[in-house]
Amino acid sequence: MTYYNIDFSLLDKTIKNFRIKPQKILLQFPDGLLGSPLQSVVNFLIERDIEPVLSADPSYGACDLPLNQAKMMGIDHIFHFGHSTFAFPPPSEFKGKISYFPVKVNIEFSWNKILEEIIILGWKTVGLLTTIQHVDKYKFENETINNSNITFVQHKEGQILGCNQDRATKIASSVDGFLVIAGGDFHASPIVVATNRPTLRYDPFNETFKLFDEQFRNKYLSKRYALIEKAKKATNWGVILSAKSGQFPKDKGSRILNMLKRKGLTAIPFIMHNVNLPHLSNFETIDAWIITLCPRLATDDYIRIKKPILTSRELAVVLGDLSWDQFITPKTGEHLLTIEEFE
Amino acid sequence: MTYYNIDFSLLDKTIKNFRIKPQKILLQFPDGLLGSPLQSVVNFLIERDIEPVLSADPSYGACDLPLNQAKMMGIDHIFHFGHSTFAFPPPSEFKGKISYFPVKVNIEFSWNKILEEIIILGWKTVGLLTTIQHVDKYKFENETINNSNITFVQHKEGQILGCNQDRATKIASSVDGFLVIAGGDFHASPIVVATNRPTLRYDPFNETFKLFDEQFRNKYLSKRYALIEKAKKATNWGVILSAKSGQFPKDKGSRILNMLKRKGLTAIPFIMHNVNLPHLSNFETIDAWIITLCPRLATDDYIRIKKPILTSRELAVVLGDLSWDQFITPKTGEHLLTIEEFE
Repeated sequence: MTYYNIDFSLLDKTIKNFRIKPQKILLQFPDGLLGSPLQSVVNFLIERDIEPVLSADPSYGACDLPLNQAKMMGIDHIFHFGHSTFAFPPPSEFKGKISYFPVKVNIEFSWNKILEEIIILGWKTVGLLTTIQHVDKYKFENETINNSNITFVQHKEGQILGCNQDRATKIASSVDGFLVIAGGDFHASPIVVATNRPTLRYDPFNETFKLFDEQFRNKYLSKRYALIEKAKKATNWGVILSAKSGQFPKDKGSRILNMLKRKGLTAIPFIMHNVNLPHLSNFETIDAWIITLCPRLATDDYIRIKKPILTSRELAVVLGDLSWDQFITPKTGEHLLTIEEFE
Repeated sequence: MTYYNIDFSLLDKTIKNFRIKPQKILLQFPDGLLGSPLQSVVNFLIERDIEPVLSADPSYGACDLPLNQAKMMGIDHIFHFGHSTFAFPPPSEFKGKISYFPVKVNIEFSWNKILEEIIILGWKTVGLLTTIQHVDKYKFENETINNSNITFVQHKEGQILGCNQDRATKIASSVDGFLVIAGGDFHASPIVVATNRPTLRYDPFNETFKLFDEQFRNKYLSKRYALIEKAKKATNWGVILSAKSGQFPKDKGSRILNMLKRKGLTAIPFIMHNVNLPHLSNFETIDAWIITLCPRLATDDYIRIKKPILTSRELAVVLGDLSWDQFITPKTGEHLLTIEEFE
């Protein structure tokens, strides 16, 4: 059985460290923790005479903070669970503190099975990556790992985000492949795209494996190529901005609008809270879309909208500022999916 | 063919009346007008060297204004299309002006067919109701109407909203039934619930009729009764608040929380931007929900969530502050669905 560990002593310490005792705390949890983990935090606050308020929209990550909601509700502080501290907090009028509480999953990895799979693949040096829930778990003093002939390497602690594969690209040239330990395919699939190294996904919740290989990457790239070619015929562009406090790249939006206008194209900014791609199909006169926030909305969800939807790095190919060859062979540090892509 | 009339001279006049020429205008349109009607307004602004910005979330009505988005985008003014001016603008830090532009639909009503249906029903006096798009269209100097033996009556211009049936309840006692002219069933179905008068819906877009009768109302009430009975067993309540600028009833939320707490029940506020009912099912420890915004989220969409979801008037029945008999036979001016329900 899997369960989630919340460090209540850390919560207690955080609350005691506030200069003034808070009256209202806004809680934000990822979807998997909305049952008893959330209720135990709610009870913890009520016992301390602090009113819990729940931010009930789905949270897409550490960047996706409900700052407007906190301000509307007269909240003192925000407690965000399940992610580590986000390095780039957005500018905001919310004056309270934002505290991040990673939630650990108590689950063992089947290292024997993992090593068997890697031996079959013939990899000697493996880049090890995982999501925040598991970061503390794969210590290299593990006996099974030490007795194998496989070398595991990491950049920093090897934590990956859905939108950024830096910790993979930084070591890609020195590994035969990547092992990604994560539930589902979401975090693993962009690694092969960004690094051009085969990527084995191990899902510790159901102990299954999936290999993302060169064929997967080629299929991905051919789909992107087709969308880019289609978008070259577009004259009316929509630039999608998110009104979510943590995902509002106003400056990036303006730069993209200017890129399009300089080429004589019509470009209109579209602002929306939850980016609802099927709804955008109602804007019939728009020929192509650019996403300024999470690039995976374009790369994973493009089938949910009829017109081409591209990342800003792909827009650079459309506008002739980047060749297809440059696009598919990024320089060190650059890659296809990052939010810090071509601007 | 149906098309929509936008009064560009009114747009022009509005822009000229601003003390300072606006640089950026935020546009908000209902779903049906996102194609060429919207594009014509975009072009109109671009020609005048004003930057159009689109609010791309679905707009649920005149109350649903993107004030936060306007502030984030440094917008001068908001132009909202397709609804008439909302009488209760929400408090906001957005300092620009909000201009409403109703959009008329050029479509003829088949009065002969309508009268035939009413004759079959045997109604002599009929309450006439419609949505904003058609309000200007049914003038009583219509020859067919005048030659019939049917008397049509209206309270004010007979415009109805999805959330408020006041213009029906005010005349309910003096009519045999209501004629609702509107696309779809959304505006017609609550009339019989609120007034206990049979309601004939005429959809002018496809010339179809549907009768909402006492049987429909009884079925509706028996469903609500079952949910209310189920909710009487709930100890853990969730109170749903919307973070949409125009739909944020903070005071109402506090009053409902206090109603529940006074009865010794646990009640937690949940704030979310788009109220996503299936997502709320993830909050496993909540036994029942109360909606503080649009009451139709509870009455129309209750099947989209596993636990009971009630309006605040229904909560009063659960808590014993209102009997079921009082609930189903509201006093004049009171009714089952209004947003000004029991508080």
